Amino acid sequence: MPTALILLAAGQGSRMMSDRAKVLHEVAGAPLLAHAMAAGRALDPALTVVVTGHQAEAVRVAALDIDPEVAVVEQTEQLGTGHAVAQARPALDGFSGDAIVLYGDTPFIRPETLEAMMAARADHAVVVLGFHAADPKHYGRLVMAGETLDRIVEYKDATEAERALTLCNSGVIAADCATLFELIGALSNDNAAGEYYLTDVVGLARARGLSAGVVICDEAETLGVNSRADLAAAEAAFQARARAEALENGVTLTAPETVFFAFDTVIGRDAVIEPNVIFGPDVTVESGARIRAFSHLEGCHVSRGAVVGPFARLRTGAELAEDVRVGNFVEIKNAQVAEGAKVNHLSYIGDATVGEHANIGAGTVTCNYDGVFKHRTEIGAHAFIGSDTMLVAPVRIGAHAMTASGSVITTNVPDDALALGRARQEVKPGLARRLMDRLRAEKAKRKGH
Amino acid sequence: MPTALILLAAGQGSRMMSDRAKVLHEVAGAPLLAHAMAAGRALDPALTVVVTGHQAEAVRVAALDIDPEVAVVEQTEQLGTGHAVAQARPALDGFSGDAIVLYGDTPFIRPETLEAMMAARADHAVVVLGFHAADPKHYGRLVMAGETLDRIVEYKDATEAERALTLCNSGVIAADCATLFELIGALSNDNAAGEYYLTDVVGLARARGLSAGVVICDEAETLGVNSRADLAAAEAAFQARARAEALENGVTLTAPETVFFAFDTVIGRDAVIEPNVIFGPDVTVESGARIRAFSHLEGCHVSRGAVVGPFARLRTGAELAEDVRVGNFVEIKNAQVAEGAKVNHLSYIGDATVGEHANIGAGTVTCNYDGVFKHRTEIGAHAFIGSDTMLVAPVRIGAHAMTASGSVITTNVPDDALALGRARQEVKPGLARRLMDRLRAEKAKRKGH
Amino acid sequence: MPTALILLAAGQGSRMMSDRAKVLHEVAGAPLLAHAMAAGRALDPALTVVVTGHQAEAVRVAALDIDPEVAVVEQTEQLGTGHAVAQARPALDGFSGDAIVLYGDTPFIRPETLEAMMAARADHAVVVLGFHAADPKHYGRLVMAGETLDRIVEYKDATEAERALTLCNSGVIAADCATLFELIGALSNDNAAGEYYLTDVVGLARARGLSAGVVICDEAETLGVNSRADLAAAEAAFQARARAEALENGVTLTAPETVFFAFDTVIGRDAVIEPNVIFGPDVTVESGARIRAFSHLEGCHVSRGAVVGPFARLRTGAELAEDVRVGNFVEIKNAQVAEGAKVNHLSYIGDATVGEHANIGAGTVTCNYDGVFKHRTEIGAHAFIGSDTMLVAPVRIGAHAMTASGSVITTNVPDDALALGRARQEVKPGLARRLMDRLRAEKAKRKGH
Repeated sequence: MPTALILLAAGQGSRMMSDRAKVLHEVAGAPLLAHAMAAGRALDPALTVVVTGHQAEAVRVAALDIDPEVAVVEQTEQLGTGHAVAQARPALDGFSGDAIVLYGDTPFIRPETLEAMMAARADHAVVVLGFHAADPKHYGRLVMAGETLDRIVEYKDATEAERALTLCNSGVIAADCATLFELIGALSNDNAAGEYYLTDVVGLARARGLSAGVVICDEAETLGVNSRADLAAAEAAFQARARAEALENGVTLTAPETVFFAFDTVIGRDAVIEPNVIFGPDVTVESGARIRAFSHLEGCHVSRGAVVGPFARLRTGAELAEDVRVGNFVEIKNAQVAEGAKVNHLSYIGDATVGEHANIGAGTVTCNYDGVFKHRTEIGAHAFIGSDTMLVAPVRIGAHAMTASGSVITTNVPDDALALGRARQEVKPGLARRLMDRLRAEKAKRKGH
Repeated sequence: MPTALILLAAGQGSRMMSDRAKVLHEVAGAPLLAHAMAAGRALDPALTVVVTGHQAEAVRVAALDIDPEVAVVEQTEQLGTGHAVAQARPALDGFSGDAIVLYGDTPFIRPETLEAMMAARADHAVVVLGFHAADPKHYGRLVMAGETLDRIVEYKDATEAERALTLCNSGVIAADCATLFELIGALSNDNAAGEYYLTDVVGLARARGLSAGVVICDEAETLGVNSRADLAAAEAAFQARARAEALENGVTLTAPETVFFAFDTVIGRDAVIEPNVIFGPDVTVESGARIRAFSHLEGCHVSRGAVVGPFARLRTGAELAEDVRVGNFVEIKNAQVAEGAKVNHLSYIGDATVGEHANIGAGTVTCNYDGVFKHRTEIGAHAFIGSDTMLVAPVRIGAHAMTASGSVITTNVPDDALALGRARQEVKPGLARRLMDRLRAEKAKRKGH
Repeated sequence: MPTALILLAAGQGSRMMSDRAKVLHEVAGAPLLAHAMAAGRALDPALTVVVTGHQAEAVRVAALDIDPEVAVVEQTEQLGTGHAVAQARPALDGFSGDAIVLYGDTPFIRPETLEAMMAARADHAVVVLGFHAADPKHYGRLVMAGETLDRIVEYKDATEAERALTLCNSGVIAADCATLFELIGALSNDNAAGEYYLTDVVGLARARGLSAGVVICDEAETLGVNSRADLAAAEAAFQARARAEALENGVTLTAPETVFFAFDTVIGRDAVIEPNVIFGPDVTVESGARIRAFSHLEGCHVSRGAVVGPFARLRTGAELAEDVRVGNFVEIKNAQVAEGAKVNHLSYIGDATVGEHANIGAGTVTCNYDGVFKHRTEIGAHAFIGSDTMLVAPVRIGAHAMTASGSVITTNVPDDALALGRARQEVKPGLARRLMDRLRAEKAKRKGH
């Protein structure tokens, strides 16, 4: 049965105290919306419809950036969740199959949970996702009749007995698409807020003799983000899970609570991650690599046996081959560093290739930007780049070539050659002493005034 | 009614295991004493008297540094809290109004709490600050008679019934100044320790038919520092509160527990603070700025849209205008960086102005120190400073000017000009290979021996 | 009575998900095995025998690296703990005294605990180390008869009453060496696993009328490492203890939870350690030094009054004398830095001596490596090294000498002399503007296509 996702991403989130749409705030390096969409993708949906509202344009752009295939519709008035879902109807015209409603500010629903909901559709016309709340105070309660969901009661309308129930409504709901829209068409806004509530769909279904069921998930999956504190809590929940998974997979995290993963970080078995390491999106670290303390990685690949840091920054396009060493205060960007090469201190290597077993001295810079264009630097295998060499790209250093420390290299250096570009050292005897004496006298004079 | 603060800062704090006076140990970048004085300032005091004792001179200097208006008196013998307060009497000669006694090692009493105490003076001659203790074991207990404080009982003198009370004495006390000193004059040191206890003032007041009252605060406000562990706990309490406030104000803290604020940090709404950021005193960050991971800021201002870090250090006098970029391994000190300028890698910019949209290459250094004096560097708008440029101050680079990478710039560069100061590159074919062969042969020879 | 240690280090640790032997995983910068051996050393053992098995060769090398005096024996088949101990017999041939069996994956048993066990040997032929477990589910239970250990019952064989006992077996056992091996010789492998259990020694001893006793330690001491999560928990336990000890000793840790100590870190009273500092092995910091945030130290010494960081890296052999300043993005390795010297920014000082009150400018590099050999740099007292100076070792800068910024120094500089090696600055009026115009035109042209 083909499935359509309807992702509600219209809310303002005023408690976020933000000019940015709530669903665009990030957890683990990706917007909340991306997390919700990723969960939904587990159902291999035929169609995904994102319903925008507040900051509609920014959310539209972000949604298409995450998945260019989604349909985006705008809810121009905020008239309730049922009304929001109704906006998806034109985009689903002609679609036949199931629809499931997800929320852009609820990032942690597991694929397995959604799959269980779709499986439960075999027994029920409408399937609701519920959870047992540790502190259910303000949630709507799910009132069961045996295996069947009898109705959803809002807290404010609930009796004492109903309030004692701990099974709560997550808001996620699945049904046959046509049925869903038919029920939504029957919703009323005859309530205090004057809104159309998606929740009321269950009552309407039951009134028509349709069966409703519940799938129960862990409360943690339903964590929604309504404030910056919630956002921080969501980040913490993500990180706790990611750290536990890394440990289970045989990664050493010296101090797990100080390591931050992105949504897509991949770390191999027997890799060692020291304290205070941050992974941005799109990082893979192979088995047996070591990421030393105070390192920051994003968009890069670290191969087996490589050692990175401490105090290293790997940016997008940094690809370290086996046994590469990247040391302290070194930045690597858009560069392929071949096996056994070393960049140990205080260097910037950008838009470059570094040959195997090349040694890059302290203070080396690939001068890749002329103010308008970026250019590439090629460093050959076994090259020895002296400290403080400026490699003015485009430039090529041959295999086994050397540069003298302090040189500015503007033209290619052949294999095996030594390039140098520096002034001859002169020594002026006694001059340092005289200069300093003069400065000190000047200082004394100024103080005298 | 004018108010005088009496700040007790004489204690040794032997459990601190320190050569430094206890009240000079810091929380959130300021001495404990400064926190206590800041709380007191909420009362707009006419006079503040700091009573020093151990390390009297160091505490005196610190107190005057925090507020040059305070009077400092020394308690040369440590004869109890009552005796300490008595030392303040000469400094308050001629003062007419209320006095309140605060403690230099108790940093967290809230202004609102002190205001409530002063308000309670309308009903009571003596007002004591109390708190309900979660674990009241060793504290003195406040024995109430209805709304009136009947007496304060030390734990060791308390009956079983009195020990069951959880309302405890913080030590903070307010009274009419003349009354306070009159009562203090009547204190006796006829007790085991041979000390004059400020606490006994309440009993003396009651014996004279004066009313005593209690204002109750949160236990957390009365947290005192007696050991390094207490100091760390005070820091943690401060940070927890500061982080919660930042979140409430609409700041994103990706990992709040890794961000450290100073007592006076100001962060605008929609700023993003990544993990592992440390704020020293006197930092303001405007709305929408982003402080990336592993950054260290003190005495600086970051404007809207600016991005700082990762691995950036902003020191005193760094002022970043809108949309400035400061990247990794960059230090900025006493420098105004204008809108849209970029200092992306491995640079030191000190005692400088950087014009709008200037681009500072990797490895640039403003050579601001000649061994005796500091000099300034001026970089014009849209200037392009090549990598590894040494700017030997005092020096001025004009607007739209460029410097070639690896240049040492010692004289001014006009607008639109290119300055360069570097040797011509030479290439010695085959020399690298020969040099390396020779070194390897030497190594083999040494090993052979 | 001489004592022999038998250290069992043969286990595979399959739940570690590692290619590395379990006992070689590290806590606080040292392998688990080293922690266990260090505890044992408190007994001043006459002999230590390490029993290897999985990854026998790697464990043998590590054990000898920790203590070259140990005997290493290999258990080639894994037939149980009793069988493992039996392998030590040949290595103890001729030894007369007590033997105690410890575990290479149990790093936290305190010296005092082992001493208590040896003392208890006065009363008992066999002494077992027990602990009261908070959650004793799967541990073997120690069944006492008054002061005497009656027997050890495995959980699966225990009655309800026995399962209610909370006194559990740690596995650590001490006995007269000859007796121990005699009892081990009598062990049977007639059990489900077909293994020889060391635990059964107690029953055999009791059957022969020998007395068995128990020494009880804290459960935390018996923490064993069986997974990466256990390893992280062991690290956390170590750090919690080390942080508490530092605080008790009068060290300020602004944020204790962000500071990581090695097994042998020594910090003096009144030192201040800011947040996010990592100590590798072999670091001493004297009283009153300050280690600023984001610093990484290993194998170094920091003297009184020195200030290190933020963002500093001290590597093996860095020795900072009193009042030295090492600032941001600075790496020091194998270098003696004399009193009052300053290395404030973006420098690499390796294989060097720096004289007292020398000032090292930003971007300075000691070029200590020629591709094959390392060479030393000597910088004299009060020398002033200009920014971006390359010191091509071997080289000596005299006292009170200066180098001009941007110089490459390849030959010695006498005392009081100024050395410079840089090209004269040239200025090309208008050229920057023309170059940039040309680049922008080129860009526009490319876009046009």
